[in-house]
Amino acid sequence: MTSTAPFDFQISDITLAEAGRHQLRLAENEMPGLMALREEYGEAQPLAGARIAGSLHMTVQTAVLIETLVALGAQVRWASCNIYSTQNEAAAAVVVGTEGTIDQPAGVPVFAWKGETLEEYWACTDRIFDWSSEAEAAGERWIGPNLILDDGGDATLLVHKGREFEAAGAVPEASDADSDEFRVVLAVLRRSLAASGDRWTRIAAELEGVTEETTTGVHRLYELARDGELLFPAINVNDSVTKSKFDNRYGIRHSLPDGLNRATDVLIGGKTAFVVGYGDVGKGAAEALRGQGARVIVSEIDPICALQAAMDGYQVAALESVVDQVDIVVTCTGNRAVVRAEHMLAMKHLAVVANVGHFDNEIDMAGLAAIDGVVKIEIKPQVHEWRLPTGRSVLVLSEGRLMNLGNATGHPSFVMSNSFANQMLAQIELHTHSENYSTDVHVLPKRLDEKVARLHLEALGVELTSLSAEQASYIGVDVEGPYKLDHYRY
Amino acid sequence: MTSTAPFDFQISDITLAEAGRHQLRLAENEMPGLMALREEYGEAQPLAGARIAGSLHMTVQTAVLIETLVALGAQVRWASCNIYSTQNEAAAAVVVGTEGTIDQPAGVPVFAWKGETLEEYWACTDRIFDWSSEAEAAGERWIGPNLILDDGGDATLLVHKGREFEAAGAVPEASDADSDEFRVVLAVLRRSLAASGDRWTRIAAELEGVTEETTTGVHRLYELARDGELLFPAINVNDSVTKSKFDNRYGIRHSLPDGLNRATDVLIGGKTAFVVGYGDVGKGAAEALRGQGARVIVSEIDPICALQAAMDGYQVAALESVVDQVDIVVTCTGNRAVVRAEHMLAMKHLAVVANVGHFDNEIDMAGLAAIDGVVKIEIKPQVHEWRLPTGRSVLVLSEGRLMNLGNATGHPSFVMSNSFANQMLAQIELHTHSENYSTDVHVLPKRLDEKVARLHLEALGVELTSLSAEQASYIGVDVEGPYKLDHYRY
Amino acid sequence: MTSTAPFDFQISDITLAEAGRHQLRLAENEMPGLMALREEYGEAQPLAGARIAGSLHMTVQTAVLIETLVALGAQVRWASCNIYSTQNEAAAAVVVGTEGTIDQPAGVPVFAWKGETLEEYWACTDRIFDWSSEAEAAGERWIGPNLILDDGGDATLLVHKGREFEAAGAVPEASDADSDEFRVVLAVLRRSLAASGDRWTRIAAELEGVTEETTTGVHRLYELARDGELLFPAINVNDSVTKSKFDNRYGIRHSLPDGLNRATDVLIGGKTAFVVGYGDVGKGAAEALRGQGARVIVSEIDPICALQAAMDGYQVAALESVVDQVDIVVTCTGNRAVVRAEHMLAMKHLAVVANVGHFDNEIDMAGLAAIDGVVKIEIKPQVHEWRLPTGRSVLVLSEGRLMNLGNATGHPSFVMSNSFANQMLAQIELHTHSENYSTDVHVLPKRLDEKVARLHLEALGVELTSLSAEQASYIGVDVEGPYKLDHYRY
Amino acid sequence: MTSTAPFDFQISDITLAEAGRHQLRLAENEMPGLMALREEYGEAQPLAGARIAGSLHMTVQTAVLIETLVALGAQVRWASCNIYSTQNEAAAAVVVGTEGTIDQPAGVPVFAWKGETLEEYWACTDRIFDWSSEAEAAGERWIGPNLILDDGGDATLLVHKGREFEAAGAVPEASDADSDEFRVVLAVLRRSLAASGDRWTRIAAELEGVTEETTTGVHRLYELARDGELLFPAINVNDSVTKSKFDNRYGIRHSLPDGLNRATDVLIGGKTAFVVGYGDVGKGAAEALRGQGARVIVSEIDPICALQAAMDGYQVAALESVVDQVDIVVTCTGNRAVVRAEHMLAMKHLAVVANVGHFDNEIDMAGLAAIDGVVKIEIKPQVHEWRLPTGRSVLVLSEGRLMNLGNATGHPSFVMSNSFANQMLAQIELHTHSENYSTDVHVLPKRLDEKVARLHLEALGVELTSLSAEQASYIGVDVEGPYKLDHYRY
Repeated sequence: MTSTAPFDFQISDITLAEAGRHQLRLAENEMPGLMALREEYGEAQPLAGARIAGSLHMTVQTAVLIETLVALGAQVRWASCNIYSTQNEAAAAVVVGTEGTIDQPAGVPVFAWKGETLEEYWACTDRIFDWSSEAEAAGERWIGPNLILDDGGDATLLVHKGREFEAAGAVPEASDADSDEFRVVLAVLRRSLAASGDRWTRIAAELEGVTEETTTGVHRLYELARDGELLFPAINVNDSVTKSKFDNRYGIRHSLPDGLNRATDVLIGGKTAFVVGYGDVGKGAAEALRGQGARVIVSEIDPICALQAAMDGYQVAALESVVDQVDIVVTCTGNRAVVRAEHMLAMKHLAVVANVGHFDNEIDMAGLAAIDGVVKIEIKPQVHEWRLPTGRSVLVLSEGRLMNLGNATGHPSFVMSNSFANQMLAQIELHTHSENYSTDVHVLPKRLDEKVARLHLEALGVELTSLSAEQASYIGVDVEGPYKLDHYRY
Repeated sequence: MTSTAPFDFQISDITLAEAGRHQLRLAENEMPGLMALREEYGEAQPLAGARIAGSLHMTVQTAVLIETLVALGAQVRWASCNIYSTQNEAAAAVVVGTEGTIDQPAGVPVFAWKGETLEEYWACTDRIFDWSSEAEAAGERWIGPNLILDDGGDATLLVHKGREFEAAGAVPEASDADSDEFRVVLAVLRRSLAASGDRWTRIAAELEGVTEETTTGVHRLYELARDGELLFPAINVNDSVTKSKFDNRYGIRHSLPDGLNRATDVLIGGKTAFVVGYGDVGKGAAEALRGQGARVIVSEIDPICALQAAMDGYQVAALESVVDQVDIVVTCTGNRAVVRAEHMLAMKHLAVVANVGHFDNEIDMAGLAAIDGVVKIEIKPQVHEWRLPTGRSVLVLSEGRLMNLGNATGHPSFVMSNSFANQMLAQIELHTHSENYSTDVHVLPKRLDEKVARLHLEALGVELTSLSAEQASYIGVDVEGPYKLDHYRY
Repeated sequence: MTSTAPFDFQISDITLAEAGRHQLRLAENEMPGLMALREEYGEAQPLAGARIAGSLHMTVQTAVLIETLVALGAQVRWASCNIYSTQNEAAAAVVVGTEGTIDQPAGVPVFAWKGETLEEYWACTDRIFDWSSEAEAAGERWIGPNLILDDGGDATLLVHKGREFEAAGAVPEASDADSDEFRVVLAVLRRSLAASGDRWTRIAAELEGVTEETTTGVHRLYELARDGELLFPAINVNDSVTKSKFDNRYGIRHSLPDGLNRATDVLIGGKTAFVVGYGDVGKGAAEALRGQGARVIVSEIDPICALQAAMDGYQVAALESVVDQVDIVVTCTGNRAVVRAEHMLAMKHLAVVANVGHFDNEIDMAGLAAIDGVVKIEIKPQVHEWRLPTGRSVLVLSEGRLMNLGNATGHPSFVMSNSFANQMLAQIELHTHSENYSTDVHVLPKRLDEKVARLHLEALGVELTSLSAEQASYIGVDVEGPYKLDHYRY
Repeated sequence: MTSTAPFDFQISDITLAEAGRHQLRLAENEMPGLMALREEYGEAQPLAGARIAGSLHMTVQTAVLIETLVALGAQVRWASCNIYSTQNEAAAAVVVGTEGTIDQPAGVPVFAWKGETLEEYWACTDRIFDWSSEAEAAGERWIGPNLILDDGGDATLLVHKGREFEAAGAVPEASDADSDEFRVVLAVLRRSLAASGDRWTRIAAELEGVTEETTTGVHRLYELARDGELLFPAINVNDSVTKSKFDNRYGIRHSLPDGLNRATDVLIGGKTAFVVGYGDVGKGAAEALRGQGARVIVSEIDPICALQAAMDGYQVAALESVVDQVDIVVTCTGNRAVVRAEHMLAMKHLAVVANVGHFDNEIDMAGLAAIDGVVKIEIKPQVHEWRLPTGRSVLVLSEGRLMNLGNATGHPSFVMSNSFANQMLAQIELHTHSENYSTDVHVLPKRLDEKVARLHLEALGVELTSLSAEQASYIGVDVEGPYKLDHYRY
């Protein structure tokens, strides 16, 4: 497979698309938020005229998102935001579409497959900004996307850097400090500049905005805004309550034990588990482990979260104080080197070390590999025994990367339905109420956050109580909400 | 006992003071935050020169607070903020002091006893602003307090109204719409104006500010600030994380089953309990009831909180849908009429109805009393059987008022240690960094919120982990904190 | 009050009886098992002709039991089985009865009041065997009881010892080794023998049997049976599943936190609690403490129970290993000296020490009192601070006796309804199917154990599923049960 | 692969054996009971002279068991007890052994592979009784096994039937009522009888006994004993506390969510789960589902278990009463047709239906397949969508068979370490204390049950407390145990 024909794979394999269709149907049942939006807005078509460049893991859940965007009137082009995260059957299903065939795909152009090279990855990201075939179909000389749906900010980065270099008239040479990946970005933009001197400038001008999924991407956006470099409005989807509180806590509660089980089959009950960090992720991890009968010890650097852990009945200790007693260590911090070689050298034989918080530096994998005499043995893919010079071993999952993705299947559909319903509403906001969104970073208004929650209640059999007019007036809110002040902590 | 001799009672009863001393000693052990502040600041005396007028329930915990204020250098005068909430032995212990005797009290002037009349109550509140004996001792012609520590805003109200009427030159007549209580306030201020035309004006001018404990008081302060009428800086202690998240959730988790047990001795296990509202109070209530083996059903008007309840494993239903199945109903909303006569008429025989959320209108007591043919029987104080015309009865606790206060003993000392440590730090801030606090409503900076948490860790055996400089830099915080953005939800 | 007029107290106090009536009415609602038996058997009167001598704590719950026995046709005389456990209002209510007045009591003769002397206690126990007034009313020369309902075996002891001494023709002198209490027993029997040489012999001959409530009493019965000295059939009520599994586990889960709260008001959440013993009582204690947010550590001597504790997520350690970390220690073993002076000397300041397992030797109170320099301070009744020479103190509840009785109100009515329904069925069995019960110790057949459970389901809203005939046949049971083999562990 | 060369597969595939070795090493770490027995008895060789015919799922855990038997001196031959349950890599590892090669296997003869035919299966079972090569090596004319280690009773059946037919002198023809499987058994025995008229008679005579793993096998043994047909002593391993209470409850708590996740990736949190049956399996299932944030409803036919469920806080209802509200249904009864077509027709769309209790008739799969118009779609292996004529579907896992085996990996090693340590001790008992075991069915003495628990404590960091001599005497037990009466319920 090459970057010139990114979705050849479907053409040769209709069964892949059919398998994807089965999975989509099941996922739709678990994504009531998206299905409710199709129902609510299907007729009104609020995304008519929207041309969305999407960059987000090309999974089954994302397939349901894409088809929901289309159901509301949008045109869409899609790439994944990670070289490994594409589920090929989901991509195939989206490309072929419900009515299409291999020869006549009726779906959405998707530029993604599992296991891309970095060059392929950035070429795919570039392709979601190339709307020439749509322009041709519409009889236009040129059109670009008018919305970005981003996860991690790569699509947004490409526009910003592209326009910057067009303004400068040249793409700089990579410096020694630049990462391999950034060199690839520069190469892509260098080819673009060679072909057109104002492509990204035109795209940037046309964009109504971007909706961003993650902490990392949001962080980049706030920096751009702070430095006055942001080119279009942005909505921070990550900080909706129905995203951050649900995704982190309930998603991890589900996928942590799932990943541990698939990786190791080790009985969790009766074991001593150590949870590094008691934010939302750590709270979900600790609850899941306790729910399986483990004794859970928590560590924290923030005294407020530490006190919460104590009030929730957990022992709170530094890892080094109890490291020789723990059977399972789970990192949940979003920081670096919270489990270090010195810890792993002191652990029980075959202690399981897993990360659900951050990059593969949260567990100091480099430090582990640098131990003199260490030997790494693959037990099975994503499960490695590291034999230590002490004579003991540790079992490291997913090479220290996020094990809920590597050893399990990531967040379940129902959790993603919450995140993606926020994405949908954010796209609709930017497209239909652009006047409300200045070139800055915004969060969704609380009434929309509440709306996302509301869309998920019926599927769970939740019966909501209604405020009477007197009650609403008594507490000073509208009967329809929003019901809380912005700083309410839930 | 009369308002002219508010603390006569100690003089006749040294054993009361001794009993209070025992309880203080035990409470000190449960209030590590306050004791740590004595340790940390005892030498520096940051409250030297502070003259604090305190209006807050005169309980054993408050006694520890008062003695902590004194230990840091403050002079203090105290009244309760509720006519029923004074624990006389605590008041006696504070007045007599550790070194005093009945004849020579060495403690703090306290103007409070259990069961004051409204006239007595406001006379007591007035007395905390009368520092003439301290002036005399200091050889000054006049001094007033320079800080208020308030709970509910009554002390703050008196100053604002007093100054308003002094400016107007007259105290208005009460109107028909005025409550009985406000008539008493007017009478107090009328007497004051007769004696001095500028007493409250001088007091207001001298005040460095107020620190306010509760939602209700904070609400009043924000209104004053909004209307440009606030006379001095205010710190909103209520919205510190270590206040609102701890007090509401963990306090209720403790005192709800305590109150149910003391009131009824009914086995909670196996029963169906209904929790109205799933905010912090409802979360604590539901956890406590489940922890005792009840099946818990929750109702909510806010779809986000409703979704949280479902994700926490609770059935979520409107009260009217399941009212005939529930054995125990607990209101946690802060709203009015969430349990109404129609509900109570439909409940099982001898269902228990209790309020931990708000005033006695959260359960519609007036509606209950208005049912034709209803009969109220006192089983014991604060526990009443209401016989309904259906032939069934309901058991209502504390006349529909907060049952954690009426049937149990309110928040435990450890919880109050968190709230009161926030009060201490807020008082120190206003007294020592007044330049940082404009005449507006402020919350405590997050570093102080974290400090409060930190002060409570050792007592619970919590071992905090330290960030390395690299880790702190990596996540962009200071090694010493604060560790989270202001909007972090915990 | 004297032993010659054991229930004078009601005669002077109708309000006591009225207060008792209120409490009975509430308790009836919580004792569905007994009420269902009244419903089921009220017409058939299976206890017609039964004359029951009852010796069991004269509480509100026992009052409901007594009135249920009467409702099924029995005649009853009652004493308490503990000098402190009588609730006078319950006793008064039973004596006066529903239709009676002070002058014309219509209820059951009760010989019990709170705070009897040992002499009074055994005189009362003697009185439940004196049916002369009933004989007179019936125009008989003499009648005795034909059933004993016993708790702890005192009534049974009196009959066995009485008959033994009658056979010997003399009551022996007390030896030096005899306890004070046994001396009182001898004195009672000496008086009896002086009055009649065959009273106990006649009583023993007439008895259809005894139903025994507790472990201790059952233990005595098995010893008598083993030694061939048992005089009449006995049913061991204690080992019914619906007694031992419910009473111990769910009763303690309820009353342990209740007692801790009433005694100390100490926040349980966040504390480290130590549970000594993980039998049914320990399981209930640990669950209750965890449910309140404590970190729970368990100790065990039995490796199977220790493994269960670990699988349930608790740290399992010897008390001496962690004694300096624990805030609350609860003994649940039924053994002696499981918390010793050496432990208490090493505890944190003001650690709470409480017993829910056994006698006051489970915590070594004698060893505590013997510490050189120890000082005992009464904080309030049943709550004592013991100041240790270390400068620290411990808080001991109920003088080391069962704190769920001393600091709380014992098992709730619903739990007792299970125990007492077993008692009821056991009495009916002995009275109506005496042919099935040899002079030995029996447990209730499993179908009756299941029946007791069945009687409690409706009150909890439990909907039972029925076996089809095919299903019953498939697993080899009767459609109506019993459903399990005798050794099934539940 | 043919039955004449049952373990050809290892010879062609050393990597299979190596993969198995890795897994064994990890499993050994999770099977501390077996490893401790190797340590304790390795030198004494209590199984010297034991010739064990083993019939039990040939998994990684069983491989550790086999190597433990060998480490204690036994000779072993092994077959699986199920045609699908062999893990080929485990079998290969055992055959090749730690020191062996493909050409020179140094391990144990294993006659098992995944996916045997019934003919192959029974031929394999027959082979574990053929010790001719061992006889040859020992220079004996003939030897047979002297112990059976059985799971489900197939090995035991073969001996009993073989001897029966030898006594009769003929193997009967299969009747119409006989199952296909029994026809295969008859064929095997017919061949045996043709070759030797007394083979099974000699084997039966030489057997010291059998140790049986499961309920089903135990049931057969009790029937044989009852009918006087049992040929040798039997130990019922299934009813050891450390088997039945651990395996059922903690094993299912682990593997139920594991199987649900691997099969469906459906979020469990927030869902309504229905658990059919609240025995040990149901208790584990309910705990696991609640621990993942599901709302759990339980059904029961036994009122005692129903009351337990209520006291544990679960709603208890018949499936038909709530069938339209449930998202996940799990059967845990050991009975037939507890979920029927009528239920599945009424369920929510894509409700998940799974069995962890019994055979594939617990969910009425035949009834489901017989619904007019039903369509079965394979989503993936062991996960089928059944489209119903209602327009809705149900998702059935593992074709209605045990989903913890079919969709997950069965009981984790640590759980099996408990079961298998009981097996080990039972084998040692029969081999070294045969005088204590008459030709009847026995359970292991409680001291051995306690020993099994004891062997698993250290791995979990459990510190056991020791009884003092005084304490042991006080409660009437030996310091070393056993600590409980036989009928104690744990």
